[in-house]
Amino acid sequence: MDSLYGTSLSLLTDLYELTMAYGYWKAGRGEQEAVFNLFFRKPPFKGGYALACGLEPALEFLQTLRFTDDDLAYLAELKGSDDQPLFEVAFLDYLRDMRFSCDVDAIPEGTVVFGNEPLVRIQGPILQAQIIETALLTILNFQTLIATKAARVCQSAQGEPVLEFGLRRAQGIDGGISASRAAYIGGCAATSNVLAGKRYGIPVKGTHAHSWVMSFDSEAEAFAAYARALPNNCIFLVDTYNTLEGVQHAIEAGKRLREAGHEMNGIRLDSGDLAYLSIEARRMLDEAGFPKASIVASNDLDEYLIRSLKDQDAAITVWGVGTNLVTAYDQPALGGVYKLAALRRNDGTWEPKIKLSEQTIKVNNPGRQQVRRYRNDRGFAADMIYDLDAPPAADQAPVIIDPNDITRRKRLSPETPSEELLVPVMRAGKLVYPLPSLSDVRQRAHQQLASLHPTIKRFENPHLYPVGLEEAYYQRKLDLILKMKAINT
Amino acid sequence: MDSLYGTSLSLLTDLYELTMAYGYWKAGRGEQEAVFNLFFRKPPFKGGYALACGLEPALEFLQTLRFTDDDLAYLAELKGSDDQPLFEVAFLDYLRDMRFSCDVDAIPEGTVVFGNEPLVRIQGPILQAQIIETALLTILNFQTLIATKAARVCQSAQGEPVLEFGLRRAQGIDGGISASRAAYIGGCAATSNVLAGKRYGIPVKGTHAHSWVMSFDSEAEAFAAYARALPNNCIFLVDTYNTLEGVQHAIEAGKRLREAGHEMNGIRLDSGDLAYLSIEARRMLDEAGFPKASIVASNDLDEYLIRSLKDQDAAITVWGVGTNLVTAYDQPALGGVYKLAALRRNDGTWEPKIKLSEQTIKVNNPGRQQVRRYRNDRGFAADMIYDLDAPPAADQAPVIIDPNDITRRKRLSPETPSEELLVPVMRAGKLVYPLPSLSDVRQRAHQQLASLHPTIKRFENPHLYPVGLEEAYYQRKLDLILKMKAINT
Repeated sequence: MDSLYGTSLSLLTDLYELTMAYGYWKAGRGEQEAVFNLFFRKPPFKGGYALACGLEPALEFLQTLRFTDDDLAYLAELKGSDDQPLFEVAFLDYLRDMRFSCDVDAIPEGTVVFGNEPLVRIQGPILQAQIIETALLTILNFQTLIATKAARVCQSAQGEPVLEFGLRRAQGIDGGISASRAAYIGGCAATSNVLAGKRYGIPVKGTHAHSWVMSFDSEAEAFAAYARALPNNCIFLVDTYNTLEGVQHAIEAGKRLREAGHEMNGIRLDSGDLAYLSIEARRMLDEAGFPKASIVASNDLDEYLIRSLKDQDAAITVWGVGTNLVTAYDQPALGGVYKLAALRRNDGTWEPKIKLSEQTIKVNNPGRQQVRRYRNDRGFAADMIYDLDAPPAADQAPVIIDPNDITRRKRLSPETPSEELLVPVMRAGKLVYPLPSLSDVRQRAHQQLASLHPTIKRFENPHLYPVGLEEAYYQRKLDLILKMKAINT
Repeated sequence: MDSLYGTSLSLLTDLYELTMAYGYWKAGRGEQEAVFNLFFRKPPFKGGYALACGLEPALEFLQTLRFTDDDLAYLAELKGSDDQPLFEVAFLDYLRDMRFSCDVDAIPEGTVVFGNEPLVRIQGPILQAQIIETALLTILNFQTLIATKAARVCQSAQGEPVLEFGLRRAQGIDGGISASRAAYIGGCAATSNVLAGKRYGIPVKGTHAHSWVMSFDSEAEAFAAYARALPNNCIFLVDTYNTLEGVQHAIEAGKRLREAGHEMNGIRLDSGDLAYLSIEARRMLDEAGFPKASIVASNDLDEYLIRSLKDQDAAITVWGVGTNLVTAYDQPALGGVYKLAALRRNDGTWEPKIKLSEQTIKVNNPGRQQVRRYRNDRGFAADMIYDLDAPPAADQAPVIIDPNDITRRKRLSPETPSEELLVPVMRAGKLVYPLPSLSDVRQRAHQQLASLHPTIKRFENPHLYPVGLEEAYYQRKLDLILKMKAINT
């Protein structure tokens, strides 16, 4: 796929990634091998899960990472507090020749994930692994957030199509384009965003706005003109003046369409009491011989409003969701972080690394980790985070411990079916992962959500899915915390 | 400036803009002249104003609008409900040859604006004026939102520098880049986002993260190594293990820097009780002979937390603000809209257009409008929205009426100094506006905010700045509403 961006994105980073890279290079440590993990601590929206999203765009970024002469000329201009250059020329030459050569393991897009599980694990020269932090976070935080929001909205719609209409209120141009992609993965049926449709093969939908109606002398005339132009794409927006009069005008236009051998697709409601108006409109459409005409509703919808409309037996068949979906209005950022977890010693072994914090929940899991997901008859049973360099014995029943409540423990039978969630996606900077099509990712998300117990998908106080550290790994983490506290305080 | 995007953005639009365009074309009305206004109804964040932002990127979009063969090939593939093409080939040929030829008037970036004032007025062929709706809204809604948020955050910082650190939590790649631009206009002193720095000439700032400290055997060693590499860029992050120990390590590194002829810039606090820790750190730094060392604070700051820290006499001198700024966390979308306001009749006169609504606030102002801002000794006094085609007499004292509360009226003296806010920016699709530099825009914003009475900038229940319709214009709007209600209901 062509890049969305016409410019090098190597500078899409916080300055401190580059000053740290320079520091590593100056200290002769740029090539020292390190492991970083990208993870979030809590699922968004006070929910019980998130839907991993954004891996393919992140891999596109990594594959195309190059510092151009233009980028380096800019970096050469940057000055420190003494008005001297921040970076020396030899470092900029190093960046010019640098090619991304890390190993990357990641949880595939469309997978249901939980707090503290590494979504992406980067292993390679610390300089490289550091400078990609910001861009990876930008891409994965946002797309995971929106895919999760879309899954919630679609859950409320109970299988009825949800159309993503958010571009005009999106946070910037690719805030819109990325949101369309993530919303589709999360379950939306289509988008209004034509560029996202072209770029990702997402179905596009849309008919007309109020301005169309206003530009004619009457609503009836506006509908008739639209039907003449696009007889195969008629969803009439009926609320420019008086909604139920509008429905009547749509019915008249629909009858003329039918006489001409076409069929009206339906109507759209964009204001007013959507429960009342949809029920009235349904009755009018049915009585007029249009029982199959869709009733599309829009107007600041989200998962809660859709649920409420469903509870009121609203006769809405298609849900147009914009602002609240593409901006994740009630929580517009996922707090994903990217933390150093291990450094390679000279003897080739790994030294686990930890950041202390007064808040225990903020202490990262050290070392090179994998996530193993256990299944039972009803779906996902538990996730175990374990140390790749000291995995649990294959014949033993591992115990997982919730590090935030060590009394929450669970013993897992070695016979329980399981899979490792992180898969190799890059080796030595080269893609080794067959990128699934967007519809395969969307299908995966659908199956993953179906494997999650309904109580975990509940909006209010969701059931806490069991995620824990393997017992021996947990003990080693505890020992490391105590050792670090002894050294540093 | 090179475009950020490597692809044509002509499809950055909702599908319905294109189906409407097709409808106008089919009806032979594509070239009929129309006027659209872009405006918001309420300032964001329950505040009293917004700061207009995003005009230059919007003009860049308009200037480069072209439907490429690739775009048209995609549109040719789109199908309607009968599986037949949505658009006929002759229409796609029309789009291929189309060049944006509208007149555009707009309020300059960095201007303080209020609800219902047209930020942009587009006049030209209805087909063209319609299809640019979505992209204009995307660009202007987001940048106006973030510039306004930045102005609020900077207001709380009371003149101390605010650094924008938000890229990692931004909504997509240009969610970050656009946010950096808007935040700088709104008053931020610098960004961490290097690409935004390069692209827009915004100062960039940053030193190191926790991972730098963790990658060394001790914090003292980490600071020493950083100081060796970047002696002219040392802000030491002191909270990886124990914050006040960290301050002590920073002081030691600062002393060695000073011995080598350099000066430590300061320290950064990223967790814990920022009021307590900053006061303690200040005392330690002062006692150690570093009274000029900055104390940078970050950690989910926003205008309210900064105000609270100021109230507690926190010794913070530089404010790092990320997520809450670049996502406008507490209101992540501005509800800007784009409405048809007038259509040119065959005789050359303008027919004002209105969309009715059960909510009076949602009824748009009809006709071609201008905004006149009156000033008094203390700054901005009132804004009058008037009809360009029936302006108030120059020698009379105009009265403005708030359409949402018609008892709120204000008589303005014709001697009061005033200016017209919308200025010509494009004529027949060509730029006629000398684009100000980003620093000029930022300067304008600063002056504009200084002209706004402090009570209007209050966060809680701000004073309502007087914005009204000129009296005769208001009467004509009322007559039009009554007439339209009579016709359509």
